[in-house]
Amino acid sequence: MIRKMASSATCIFCKIVKGEIPCFKLVETEKTLAFLDIQPLSRGHALVIPKHHGEKLADIPDDSLSELLPIAKKLAIASGAVDYNILQNNGKLAHQEVGHVHVHMIPKPNEKEGLIVGWPQQATDMEALKKLHAEIKEKL
Amino acid sequence: MIRKMASSATCIFCKIVKGEIPCFKLVETEKTLAFLDIQPLSRGHALVIPKHHGEKLADIPDDSLSELLPIAKKLAIASGAVDYNILQNNGKLAHQEVGHVHVHMIPKPNEKEGLIVGWPQQATDMEALKKLHAEIKEKL
Repeated sequence: MIRKMASSATCIFCKIVKGEIPCFKLVETEKTLAFLDIQPLSRGHALVIPKHHGEKLADIPDDSLSELLPIAKKLAIASGAVDYNILQNNGKLAHQEVGHVHVHMIPKPNEKEGLIVGWPQQATDMEALKKLHAEIKEKL
Repeated sequence: MIRKMASSATCIFCKIVKGEIPCFKLVETEKTLAFLDIQPLSRGHALVIPKHHGEKLADIPDDSLSELLPIAKKLAIASGAVDYNILQNNGKLAHQEVGHVHVHMIPKPNEKEGLIVGWPQQATDMEALKKLHAEIKEKL
């Protein structure tokens, strides 16, 4: 089955997919493209994107999501990174800057370079978790 | 083909997979398990793990990686999150706390709760990128 992949005429990543904007391409398959981030957080910082246009993870068909982590893994290995973060941001509040799903593979060579992770952990509340668990289960 | 999945007797997530430690289970398939994080960064914070034991992304077979994002997507939708981060940390320096690959789905309801992202972006250096591109391509 050939399904038309969603595309946006104004999206910078769709333009890269179509070859209208150049990139430092690393991997390309039927559904996926990977290339270097040109404003890296560290050496080897790369992006893996589904060719299918969609702003958030929830907008992308599963068969366009399944390759993203295997390809991010290939990039991590090829980059030589020992420690690294895989990050995919959804929404401006969550630090998304381009409105087309992209998975970052960000080597973490030292404390200063790469992703800086802030972790405002909340206390464990078993009663609240139990209630939330039931709520989410109902929607799955 | 049935392949024995790697497991570790001392790994807390392998114990959860085997049912030796309870969890607030959300999704389970042959290769994947998802459950609530009991020390959440925000309401709905959940983890998706391959049952196959491995410390880093590079240690997990592709067929155990392909379901992780489709399931994270399901959790994001079911949690009702509008903005959210998908994060997978590799190595202590990169903020990994349990040595078994896990993908966080972290709702970002406001500035204070959820993942805090620090982004020490480097200047674009086209010559360095061109050289790096050739180097990584050779290893892919």
